Amino acid sequence: MALAEKTRELLRRTSTATLTTQMLKRGFRNVFMEGVRPFHPAGGVMVGEAATLRYIPAREDLDSIESLGSREHPQRKTIETIPPGQVLVVDCRGETRVAGAGAILMARLFARGAAGFVCDGGVRDLATGASVGLPLYCAGAAAPPNVMRHHAIAAGEPIACGGVAVFPGDVIVGDSDGVVVLPPKLADEVAAAAAEQEHLEDFLFEEVKAGKPLFGTYPPDEATLARYRAKKG
Amino acid sequence: MALAEKTRELLRRTSTATLTTQMLKRGFRNVFMEGVRPFHPAGGVMVGEAATLRYIPAREDLDSIESLGSREHPQRKTIETIPPGQVLVVDCRGETRVAGAGAILMARLFARGAAGFVCDGGVRDLATGASVGLPLYCAGAAAPPNVMRHHAIAAGEPIACGGVAVFPGDVIVGDSDGVVVLPPKLADEVAAAAAEQEHLEDFLFEEVKAGKPLFGTYPPDEATLARYRAKKG
Amino acid sequence: MALAEKTRELLRRTSTATLTTQMLKRGFRNVFMEGVRPFHPAGGVMVGEAATLRYIPAREDLDSIESLGSREHPQRKTIETIPPGQVLVVDCRGETRVAGAGAILMARLFARGAAGFVCDGGVRDLATGASVGLPLYCAGAAAPPNVMRHHAIAAGEPIACGGVAVFPGDVIVGDSDGVVVLPPKLADEVAAAAAEQEHLEDFLFEEVKAGKPLFGTYPPDEATLARYRAKKG
Amino acid sequence: MALAEKTRELLRRTSTATLTTQMLKRGFRNVFMEGVRPFHPAGGVMVGEAATLRYIPAREDLDSIESLGSREHPQRKTIETIPPGQVLVVDCRGETRVAGAGAILMARLFARGAAGFVCDGGVRDLATGASVGLPLYCAGAAAPPNVMRHHAIAAGEPIACGGVAVFPGDVIVGDSDGVVVLPPKLADEVAAAAAEQEHLEDFLFEEVKAGKPLFGTYPPDEATLARYRAKKG
Amino acid sequence: MALAEKTRELLRRTSTATLTTQMLKRGFRNVFMEGVRPFHPAGGVMVGEAATLRYIPAREDLDSIESLGSREHPQRKTIETIPPGQVLVVDCRGETRVAGAGAILMARLFARGAAGFVCDGGVRDLATGASVGLPLYCAGAAAPPNVMRHHAIAAGEPIACGGVAVFPGDVIVGDSDGVVVLPPKLADEVAAAAAEQEHLEDFLFEEVKAGKPLFGTYPPDEATLARYRAKKG
Amino acid sequence: MALAEKTRELLRRTSTATLTTQMLKRGFRNVFMEGVRPFHPAGGVMVGEAATLRYIPAREDLDSIESLGSREHPQRKTIETIPPGQVLVVDCRGETRVAGAGAILMARLFARGAAGFVCDGGVRDLATGASVGLPLYCAGAAAPPNVMRHHAIAAGEPIACGGVAVFPGDVIVGDSDGVVVLPPKLADEVAAAAAEQEHLEDFLFEEVKAGKPLFGTYPPDEATLARYRAKKG
Repeated sequence: MALAEKTRELLRRTSTATLTTQMLKRGFRNVFMEGVRPFHPAGGVMVGEAATLRYIPAREDLDSIESLGSREHPQRKTIETIPPGQVLVVDCRGETRVAGAGAILMARLFARGAAGFVCDGGVRDLATGASVGLPLYCAGAAAPPNVMRHHAIAAGEPIACGGVAVFPGDVIVGDSDGVVVLPPKLADEVAAAAAEQEHLEDFLFEEVKAGKPLFGTYPPDEATLARYRAKKG
Repeated sequence: MALAEKTRELLRRTSTATLTTQMLKRGFRNVFMEGVRPFHPAGGVMVGEAATLRYIPAREDLDSIESLGSREHPQRKTIETIPPGQVLVVDCRGETRVAGAGAILMARLFARGAAGFVCDGGVRDLATGASVGLPLYCAGAAAPPNVMRHHAIAAGEPIACGGVAVFPGDVIVGDSDGVVVLPPKLADEVAAAAAEQEHLEDFLFEEVKAGKPLFGTYPPDEATLARYRAKKG
Repeated sequence: MALAEKTRELLRRTSTATLTTQMLKRGFRNVFMEGVRPFHPAGGVMVGEAATLRYIPAREDLDSIESLGSREHPQRKTIETIPPGQVLVVDCRGETRVAGAGAILMARLFARGAAGFVCDGGVRDLATGASVGLPLYCAGAAAPPNVMRHHAIAAGEPIACGGVAVFPGDVIVGDSDGVVVLPPKLADEVAAAAAEQEHLEDFLFEEVKAGKPLFGTYPPDEATLARYRAKKG
Repeated sequence: MALAEKTRELLRRTSTATLTTQMLKRGFRNVFMEGVRPFHPAGGVMVGEAATLRYIPAREDLDSIESLGSREHPQRKTIETIPPGQVLVVDCRGETRVAGAGAILMARLFARGAAGFVCDGGVRDLATGASVGLPLYCAGAAAPPNVMRHHAIAAGEPIACGGVAVFPGDVIVGDSDGVVVLPPKLADEVAAAAAEQEHLEDFLFEEVKAGKPLFGTYPPDEATLARYRAKKG
Repeated sequence: MALAEKTRELLRRTSTATLTTQMLKRGFRNVFMEGVRPFHPAGGVMVGEAATLRYIPAREDLDSIESLGSREHPQRKTIETIPPGQVLVVDCRGETRVAGAGAILMARLFARGAAGFVCDGGVRDLATGASVGLPLYCAGAAAPPNVMRHHAIAAGEPIACGGVAVFPGDVIVGDSDGVVVLPPKLADEVAAAAAEQEHLEDFLFEEVKAGKPLFGTYPPDEATLARYRAKKG
Repeated sequence: MALAEKTRELLRRTSTATLTTQMLKRGFRNVFMEGVRPFHPAGGVMVGEAATLRYIPAREDLDSIESLGSREHPQRKTIETIPPGQVLVVDCRGETRVAGAGAILMARLFARGAAGFVCDGGVRDLATGASVGLPLYCAGAAAPPNVMRHHAIAAGEPIACGGVAVFPGDVIVGDSDGVVVLPPKLADEVAAAAAEQEHLEDFLFEEVKAGKPLFGTYPPDEATLARYRAKKG
């Protein structure tokens, strides 16, 4: 199920804060990645469908610098086949001592039109990787190469990332707070509701900045909603 | 016991480093919050008396988006009643996966003249919240709303925050290193001693930058103290 | 074994990412410090031989503000005797709640020509300390003085820092990713190999940014290497 | 709302595993304490209403061995006023380095007819305390007295324990797996459903031990249920 | 590649301590599971080939008590198809707050002739499950059902467990220290070498208990080896 | 300063709970090791002066199975030179994934008349090592040999163990709660005070078991003390 362009557009204008609120209203309590932060220049948002990659712990006889050369290496293969508009999400088991990827791979993902990169581990050459133009979310900088502790085992599988389940095709949204995961079947509905909530909250934020009390404003009572509709109209 | 304006002024010009030193001299070893950092623009300091709010873990039948609407909700009530010059300190039990508060509440606290916001959990819409003008200290960004894992249970109680005891009325000071908690009965004395130490250390810092060795300078011997008094005089 | 000036120069132009790769090729899997990040202005690199300082937990009868005044205090003595070009590395046992050092000591290290400061604990007055001109790597800001939880026990001993063994004289390299430790006997060889790899990867990075696929480029096949050699001329 | 004797009796014969299943069916996902284990002799179960005690971090001027002598000390007062059949639950903020209580207090709770003791911190003289006859659940042994890191601040408040909300009067059940918390309004219904499930599962456990496959047995199909009803009948 | 009966027999008589030593000699440094302990009665060892099961985080719309009824549920299917002599190893991502399995499943694995159960999460009804006769290794007791935090996603895949890579068919050995993972291609060789080392060390252990110094005995010099060979002969 | 035989005898009859109380009265708040538990058969206490051994992280070129053969290896040398009545305390940096020592070394320490073994890491062949007769305190079982992650660097230095400073010659006391560290200069005084407190508390424990309330009994008032003295007399 492809992500509708309109939904993609709405999601670009909503925050992960609003999206988690909408998901909670629908009974979902575990949708925001733990320990995963943006490292690209402030302001860049990320929306795309998940392409997934799974690491398991390295084994000394299988994982060396040489292993990265193969065309069958799942990390490299995933990057070379990722469709434009997708976000590569990598399950690093929260391992922050080594890199899940580095600057050259960020450049390649950007060149291929990927929508972003997310992992719950480190990234090497992080400052450079964060500047190539691709939205980049990870747990921090880590110089050692992935084969030091990871064995790339498979692409396209459901994974864990930042304590959240990520299925291939899930809708991944990132802003300056972090990364939220939406099941595709809910994406249109949640995006629409979130955009509406966001528009209202922008109004409420201005009201509060102008001195209105929380009571009656946040959440809004009928009088506030009437003012909102008048202004919006 | 209200915080004397003079003490407030002295504390604005002292660092938390100096204050923890003064507290250690008085036998206090646990006064600096762990895992709590500033997120507002660099340079802003925070001084004020603590208003407290306590969260316990959420329970699914009690905590939903709807719970936030009530005028009796302790989080909302605390914010709407906080006196000017106080710092809202929230006990989030170190829970970094959800927000203790968000940008609209930061705006309201600022509008009400609060002196700052401190929690040992996350804040949502953190970049926006950090820009409203209020000193903001927390453990990082977290998009999910507080009801996802918190139940706001009471205001005005002694709490834990960042591993430190905070009693309502305690003097809270924040700078770029973090947040220190002072019992009110010690505030005047510690502020005076810290301001004096700070003034001396500014002098010593210049001396060391100019090439003086640590021995005789930091801590200062009589010759250094004489130079200091001469300059100060 | 003094660090050769040529090696020092080569290391200044290599990243810790490349150095960890070279070390892995030689069978070393534990060379990059965990939880230690740069806090000085972006871009500054650090290269130097390790001078070491070891802390153990404080004991109330031994560690007070007064203990810092002695000329025999290992922390102060180490700083006053560090040769130019060396990096002070402090074993804080990963203790992030107190400072391993502060701004005045950073200024003194800089004045003495030290090449940098590294600890796996906190630093107080961190913003000031990070601005004196010295490369500064630590776990974050922490206002309380080191005697609150540390007893400086000895200088010049092999230590642990960030989970890595550091022997006095080891070659310490820091960039925006973090800090790597190289045994002196390998420094020349690893520096040369890393500089070469770095030069090649800069070329590959440009190739990939220009649209080349990973396969054949990263790692490079013969055609790519030929282009590289042609350009390198 | 007192706990009905019949419910208490049913809960004595159900496992916490079954109770968490019943709670999940009703939408409760956070009811089992993390890091809290039984230390009394195997086999003893615990059922009772929660009496609560809350600790915050100690402050050196407030907390000393002498503070424990006061009749107003919340820990001592709570123990001397706990009604028979209640479980004392203490919020230790997960602090395992010091004791939440010790053997003499266990003996006093037992003498007063308390139904058990639960804390998410340590217990001192643990082996002795575990042998006085009282069901005892905690995070492990810790010799230092509570005043080393705790300030007992209040009794009878809603608290956190092991990551779960505990309100005074909540129904606390412990077995060899650990401790579950039930809201009183659900206790009768959950106890009845759990007892029924337990009875069925005892039958299924025997079936599986006798060689039946999971499919059709666990969960049971109609044929299995018929056999169960026949035997039960 | 089936595990040779002779190798299985040798492994039953070797300790995981000896096996990790043999693996280190062959360059393998990450073969022992972290945080995974035996819970069955003391003395029982475990040897078998790995059957694997992988969990990812639960999602509220996918994971409920009802999901466990399906014949396609990977956990149930894996157990009903496990060949005799294999060890079920489950990737719980180190999640200790909920169960990876419970007593009824232990009974079924035992009835099917499985050689053991291993997970890096909790087990519910642990005391009962540990008594059915199956070697049982996990991180501790946890009453909540797996669907509270897990979604069973696939069987027969390479996984992580206790920080170690486990491929289906890997040889799993458990004793009172914990669990070690051996690649099948090394099993015969490592088992033989380990059995020999074990035999020697039993002799050395007796020598040391009888008062021999470590030097010359552990590791043994020629004289000690001669005594060993004489006795063994 | 040798430990007086009378003090040793008194300490054998006091609990670590009582000793930490006595140390707190003298201003010491950090004397009990964190994460270190007894593994020898219940009931055995440990008293002795500390012999220390310090590990730093392993380096692949320095640490292999072969390194253990040298007579200069600090671990082996320390054990072969430990005087009777001393406790070997090893700084493992809290590393629980590998062993700090194993069963054969426990046997040798016992044969040499050592008073016990303490480390804040794992022990291999733990069940066997715990049965040789030596009091054994550690963080749990771990099969991998120490060279997998440790490099034994020096004996006889002040170290950290379980978060506490340990100087050679410090008095180490262990019971079923864990391990406490006493500076030698305080040993006689603390032992005497603790024995007295222990004797009184044994009486109070009986009083409380017999039904006395805490108030007036624990801490004791004059009437209780009179009864105590009468009985004691």
